[in-house]
Amino acid sequence: MKLLEDIPGMKEELELVGHTMRECVADSLGRQPLSKIIEEILASDGKYLRPALVLIFGRIGMAYPACRSKLVKTAAVVELIHMASLIHDDIVDDAPYRRGRDTIQSAFGKDMAVYAGDYLLSCVLRELMSPEMLDVGQSLSRAMGDMCSGELGQYAAQFNVNTDENQYFMNISGKTAALFSAACETGAIASGCGQSSVSASKQFGHSLGLIFQLRDDLLDCILSHEDSGKKQGMDFINGIYTLPVIYTFNDSHYGPAIRDLAARAKGMEPQQVFTELYSIVSVSGGVEYTRWIMRQYRERAMGYMLQLPSSPAKSQLSGVLDYLVEV
Amino acid sequence: MKLLEDIPGMKEELELVGHTMRECVADSLGRQPLSKIIEEILASDGKYLRPALVLIFGRIGMAYPACRSKLVKTAAVVELIHMASLIHDDIVDDAPYRRGRDTIQSAFGKDMAVYAGDYLLSCVLRELMSPEMLDVGQSLSRAMGDMCSGELGQYAAQFNVNTDENQYFMNISGKTAALFSAACETGAIASGCGQSSVSASKQFGHSLGLIFQLRDDLLDCILSHEDSGKKQGMDFINGIYTLPVIYTFNDSHYGPAIRDLAARAKGMEPQQVFTELYSIVSVSGGVEYTRWIMRQYRERAMGYMLQLPSSPAKSQLSGVLDYLVEV
Repeated sequence: MKLLEDIPGMKEELELVGHTMRECVADSLGRQPLSKIIEEILASDGKYLRPALVLIFGRIGMAYPACRSKLVKTAAVVELIHMASLIHDDIVDDAPYRRGRDTIQSAFGKDMAVYAGDYLLSCVLRELMSPEMLDVGQSLSRAMGDMCSGELGQYAAQFNVNTDENQYFMNISGKTAALFSAACETGAIASGCGQSSVSASKQFGHSLGLIFQLRDDLLDCILSHEDSGKKQGMDFINGIYTLPVIYTFNDSHYGPAIRDLAARAKGMEPQQVFTELYSIVSVSGGVEYTRWIMRQYRERAMGYMLQLPSSPAKSQLSGVLDYLVEV
Repeated sequence: MKLLEDIPGMKEELELVGHTMRECVADSLGRQPLSKIIEEILASDGKYLRPALVLIFGRIGMAYPACRSKLVKTAAVVELIHMASLIHDDIVDDAPYRRGRDTIQSAFGKDMAVYAGDYLLSCVLRELMSPEMLDVGQSLSRAMGDMCSGELGQYAAQFNVNTDENQYFMNISGKTAALFSAACETGAIASGCGQSSVSASKQFGHSLGLIFQLRDDLLDCILSHEDSGKKQGMDFINGIYTLPVIYTFNDSHYGPAIRDLAARAKGMEPQQVFTELYSIVSVSGGVEYTRWIMRQYRERAMGYMLQLPSSPAKSQLSGVLDYLVEV
């Protein structure tokens, strides 16, 4: 994200993160097909949003810049956890592409993708097995558990038109917000922040993660200038019912129409599903309600930011929030 | 394994291991469907062979019995890594049953099984994130990486009738021997053994693990009194070519017959495949060769045992080797 790269020193640190990730996952024995798969995984570079959060929150404590190498290592581990979860998600979603490339499951098969994700997790574990990484490791292991619980919750609710907001927020808290939250928290921990700042950082990350997911979910069912790289309407077709949809399910006027669409969607052209979906959630108020919730979480996030010591890096965060909310 | 349970105190310690595993994976928030899946995972209890190895090697160092709680924790983590790998293996193998129960993938679907395995790994990570567990954690994280590499190697070699012994041993070293090896090594580490005993324990575990896998592979293609609980001939039908088979592929006389069977196997009745397979590998010398290799590894393992301080628990290990080799 351009906003984050403008922070002095950030670009260089993110490059170090990429370098550390490569070192961390390289197989010193050059075993095949492992090494070939690792190469393919590393070629599909992400936006490094989560590592950037680690680095930003790593600047609010007194230990910065002395803690820089721990921060870079933490940021690399956070991105590896994210990548492992993407590889496993793509198996579940049967996704052919990600970040413009074949997914691991489509390039090497689902069998290989299971073990490729597990291999990344073994690298995460090895990287965390040193005394100076224990505190961040505790936070990250909790986040990993929460991510699994959230994903499991989402699959349990799949195609359930009676799922509710509560369940939805529990699921996205796990599958998405947990790692955002841990990224901010571990940055604060590594930079030697006190308990109250660590806690505010964690809460900030949680709100930011929810906004990030709400935005992603909104982009599945509205017209937008943005090319998210994903085909629209697919969450709905796959029975992943998000906030604008759940809101509409419960609307006395538009509920029947969207439930009817949900029943028909599987056999329809995705473009046609999207067109009908968009028209229903727009008029039902589902889209507006979701935008309103996102603004609520922005307010909360701003509140947590106020509890943190001021820093030039921190000031970029409100820009990030604005960018995410304006969708 | 009965032999191991005869060691004084072992049964009680294994019960503690089971208890620790339960505590370690329990979700304090009682989230669903996570909690239901955890219950199902725990209901499918194994033989605790790997935890027993941790406990046995935990008795050879001077720190026993003071290190007992660390040993129990290590043994629990080793079994959780094993269980996570089984859950993910069953996805790949499409296995309907394990240990007489539905597998997680058949009870809850493959999607759930991916995250269920990942959840166990997150618990492993959390359990290892304490200062006293760092040394054993380093060994276990390496083993996890090796397990993935071995599994990947096996899938890369699938249906390749030109695969060789070298590749086979690399694959089973990773997928099976690595965790046996780490179980023995971490037991020795936890009980405060010196570097040479730790290394001998690790090597012992490696040989034992290879014997264990060779035995399993042999049981796929010979007549035996033992009911391994698995349908025979399935490795061969699924293109997992094991030592007796690889030996026969390279036999000038019987090679053509077994290659021909490999080409036909997919469309045949499993029982018929097994009958033909058994008759070929028996006369080709593949079975005898495999037994001979197993005895070689038993000799090696006995050699490593001699390098360890004597202990009553240790003396049971030769019984375990004899049991595994006599198949």
